[in-house]
Amino acid sequence: MELVGPGALMSWVDLPAGTGFGLANLPHGVFSTPGTAPRSGIAIGDSVLDLAAVTGDPVHATGSLNAFLAQGPTAWRELRARVTDWLTDEVYRARVEPHLIPRGDVTMHLPVEVADYVDFYSSRHHAENLGRILRPGSPPLLPNWRHLPVGYHGRSGTVRVSGTPVVRPHGQRAEPEGPPSAGPTRRLDIEAEVGFVVGAPSELGTPVPLGAFPEHVFGVCLVDDWSARDLQAWEYAPLGPFLGKSFLTSVSPWVVPLAALEAARVPAPPRDVPLLPYLDDGDDPWGLDLSLEVRLNGALVSCPPFAGMYWTPAQQLAHLTVNGAALRTGDLVASGTVSGPRRDQRGSLMELSWGGTEPLTLAGGTTRTFLEDGDEVTISGTAPGTDGSRISLGEVTGRVVPDPMREE
Amino acid sequence: MELVGPGALMSWVDLPAGTGFGLANLPHGVFSTPGTAPRSGIAIGDSVLDLAAVTGDPVHATGSLNAFLAQGPTAWRELRARVTDWLTDEVYRARVEPHLIPRGDVTMHLPVEVADYVDFYSSRHHAENLGRILRPGSPPLLPNWRHLPVGYHGRSGTVRVSGTPVVRPHGQRAEPEGPPSAGPTRRLDIEAEVGFVVGAPSELGTPVPLGAFPEHVFGVCLVDDWSARDLQAWEYAPLGPFLGKSFLTSVSPWVVPLAALEAARVPAPPRDVPLLPYLDDGDDPWGLDLSLEVRLNGALVSCPPFAGMYWTPAQQLAHLTVNGAALRTGDLVASGTVSGPRRDQRGSLMELSWGGTEPLTLAGGTTRTFLEDGDEVTISGTAPGTDGSRISLGEVTGRVVPDPMREE
Repeated sequence: MELVGPGALMSWVDLPAGTGFGLANLPHGVFSTPGTAPRSGIAIGDSVLDLAAVTGDPVHATGSLNAFLAQGPTAWRELRARVTDWLTDEVYRARVEPHLIPRGDVTMHLPVEVADYVDFYSSRHHAENLGRILRPGSPPLLPNWRHLPVGYHGRSGTVRVSGTPVVRPHGQRAEPEGPPSAGPTRRLDIEAEVGFVVGAPSELGTPVPLGAFPEHVFGVCLVDDWSARDLQAWEYAPLGPFLGKSFLTSVSPWVVPLAALEAARVPAPPRDVPLLPYLDDGDDPWGLDLSLEVRLNGALVSCPPFAGMYWTPAQQLAHLTVNGAALRTGDLVASGTVSGPRRDQRGSLMELSWGGTEPLTLAGGTTRTFLEDGDEVTISGTAPGTDGSRISLGEVTGRVVPDPMREE
Repeated sequence: MELVGPGALMSWVDLPAGTGFGLANLPHGVFSTPGTAPRSGIAIGDSVLDLAAVTGDPVHATGSLNAFLAQGPTAWRELRARVTDWLTDEVYRARVEPHLIPRGDVTMHLPVEVADYVDFYSSRHHAENLGRILRPGSPPLLPNWRHLPVGYHGRSGTVRVSGTPVVRPHGQRAEPEGPPSAGPTRRLDIEAEVGFVVGAPSELGTPVPLGAFPEHVFGVCLVDDWSARDLQAWEYAPLGPFLGKSFLTSVSPWVVPLAALEAARVPAPPRDVPLLPYLDDGDDPWGLDLSLEVRLNGALVSCPPFAGMYWTPAQQLAHLTVNGAALRTGDLVASGTVSGPRRDQRGSLMELSWGGTEPLTLAGGTTRTFLEDGDEVTISGTAPGTDGSRISLGEVTGRVVPDPMREE
């Protein structure tokens, strides 16, 4: 095969105009067809390449990406190169084409068996908005925020694939005065985030420096970290969010390899205070120009830009491990809500409705502060590809269903 | 076999006088001998019964208890009854005795592949002590504390078995004024806790009521939730503890089945405020009379009593799932630091040294506020058994080793 840049490559697969799933993307996911077991595949145009079948390698037949991700970056690069060959060189067509399945015919599954789920708080605009809403009159950022990526562990056992119904959670709700009430949340919210999936593990006691980020992280998905703000407000002091978040976290089904995001890398924003050496990314920042869109019942309500995130995913990983914490294959490291400086760039309803005080107006004149039963939220994302196209991060969606225990 | 109470049973195994590992205990763990793979066993006296060998069941040969725990409470009860028969009826002796291995010859492993690790804060004395130390002049308990068991998710990937070295973690340390410093923690602490291991999973969207506690939780271990107080103090607002805890959590190797703790059940303490129905355990409380001992370099420094815990493990599980969060086999639900009302019942050095202001005096006149390199901490525990003996919860131990990155 000739040595040519990816911009020059053409696939024999019939790719729809403007597809976000061209040769520059090649995201990994787990799919099934009726009557068959979940297995790994790669999206190409409107099809899925059945990796288990085309390779015959049982690593792709386990029902999660973990076994392949654990093989590490050399294996990731080699497979990407092989799949690119298969999809571009006509000589492979007869062997490969029978293993292309229309994406409309498959069911997507959770791509990764999640090990630990860590959620950061890395958008300055989001943190400042929350500070202004929740602590009016105080400085919007707490003293630690500029010095380290604030984060916490979430519940990995309730991470589910896009499309999982969002059952309105029940719990103890903050009331303006007096004791809490019990019942379904009245402040069900979204958080539009980007998640980074760890492939290669690290040893306990060995920090992962900034430069090792692409040796450990395989790729990127979209995350909706559903939140019950009234549960969260009551429970969170002093140990952080718990039941306000742990009922469900949804992820997009396609994990876009970091290798597909080379053209999306951008500088990090200026920082207010000198960074400690383990966080100083001056030479090699991992800012990423990902563009998110949030739709509520079909109406575009926000376009959060990932490029301006104060803390990058490489800094998040370096911080997460500076105390010697080990990484495992399947760790999901999310950015926290992505919000930009403009109102129409905010990544949560808490911000979009300013704590419920400024309702959003949707199509037909309906309004929303927080989510109502039946509402559907979809977060999608794109990034510049290495061939000049825009590649798709797919989407993560969910529809709210009532709390089955409600008595109201 | 005759229907007799366990008090009347005698084993043909030679049990040392006063063993905490008699027929009333039968805890499960994972062990290996030199050159053999980790497999499941049950402790009896000074021996381990090799479950994989004696049963021939591959569920006991996986290297973790998870596969067996996932079989649920009927399988747990059946195996316990069978093992009791095997160890008491001479007719089984010839078949069983070859599968008893001296405990001194085995290496113990992490008993459970931990799914999610949740850490509560359920000792009122501990929460009040921390409140008084960290927020002097304010009410020691925050408003939510009496209404719900406060908790958070920890890092399941850094849970390790007893004996794992405690590498002094590096990170950003709170300073009295100005920006943080970077370096090894100066306030390395312990937290003496009790952990509850989930066996039978639950469905997303389906809360686990108080009464279903023993249908989901298999058993109990001891937990040392090592903590770096200066890292924690700087990072924890507003999302809770993160790197101050995530470098290591140690657990005892033997998981004592709930079935062995029937005689340890005690009433819950009186509560200050009416409990919401899902937490109201009036009829069937799961207080447990477990006695802990904390030793620092061999000196007994504390005897935390579990019986007085304000929130019981059944309430913790009911709260954890009231929002619909699913349980998985291997979930580890820890109590939080166990502290009693007396100074010699406090379960952390933070409390024992009152924030570092009142050093402990150890044997030979040495003093400690927080842990120094080379220090060894061992937490052990016992409970009343159904046969009138005291059963052992084993121990969890760790020795502090220096931060390999330190430059000081």
